[in-house]
Amino acid sequence: MRAALDAAAQAAAEGEVPVGAVVVRHAIIVAVAGNAPRRLHDPSAHAEMRAIRAAAKALGRDRLEDCDLWVTLEPCAMCAGAIAHARIARLYYGAGDPKGGAVEHGPRLFGQPTCHHRPEVYPGIGEREAALLLRDFFRDRR
Amino acid sequence: MRAALDAAAQAAAEGEVPVGAVVVRHAIIVAVAGNAPRRLHDPSAHAEMRAIRAAAKALGRDRLEDCDLWVTLEPCAMCAGAIAHARIARLYYGAGDPKGGAVEHGPRLFGQPTCHHRPEVYPGIGEREAALLLRDFFRDRR
Repeated sequence: MRAALDAAAQAAAEGEVPVGAVVVRHAIIVAVAGNAPRRLHDPSAHAEMRAIRAAAKALGRDRLEDCDLWVTLEPCAMCAGAIAHARIARLYYGAGDPKGGAVEHGPRLFGQPTCHHRPEVYPGIGEREAALLLRDFFRDRR
Repeated sequence: MRAALDAAAQAAAEGEVPVGAVVVRHAIIVAVAGNAPRRLHDPSAHAEMRAIRAAAKALGRDRLEDCDLWVTLEPCAMCAGAIAHARIARLYYGAGDPKGGAVEHGPRLFGQPTCHHRPEVYPGIGEREAALLLRDFFRDRR
């Protein structure tokens, strides 16, 4: 989660909402990414999506069933959907997101009957620092 | 929708589940893409995601509020989430997808209170041909 938090801080420095994500396989980091939709002109460029795409590319396959995802914020519907498509084994995340989260909030995607893959979910990892990064970012923008 | 159906047929020819998508702006096609997660080693490479990403890149911005998306199959949660993030104005789609769809089935994302953007939705456009492409693809795979 340290690497994910660092990627989130880096995203903030680039003017993006500070969220960071890391894909880990057999205790080794396969991909690290920060949130970057504005910088990349890509509405799908959330940290989770970028990390999953980079890991899949690095491993040369479209399924990551032996990989875990660490992310500083509760994933949104788009990212939770991608996590299911990628068959991520375990999801660790920091702060909950009542406004945009889709794991413990909103549509709670992994609990939907049509969800075809449910990772193990571990919330609240590094929550305080992840939430502080977001709070400071939005406070400075006001 | 003709271009989206052609992209779906092309995806089938490449061994991918036949779904195609097109982004249109002011009656001009900005991007066309077929489903390609296996070929690209990218679990997020659904037709809608690829078309949205290509359109955003072509237009040099991360929001497509003046664009419409045409897709041959009801979008899944990942793609519906991306459609909301991209602020797509109108969504036209072909066949409904009771197993994986997230617009009229499953989580019905655009009806969720936490959904921050709802496109106008027009289902059933080119439905018969879109469904036939999928049926033939899965029949040939059995």
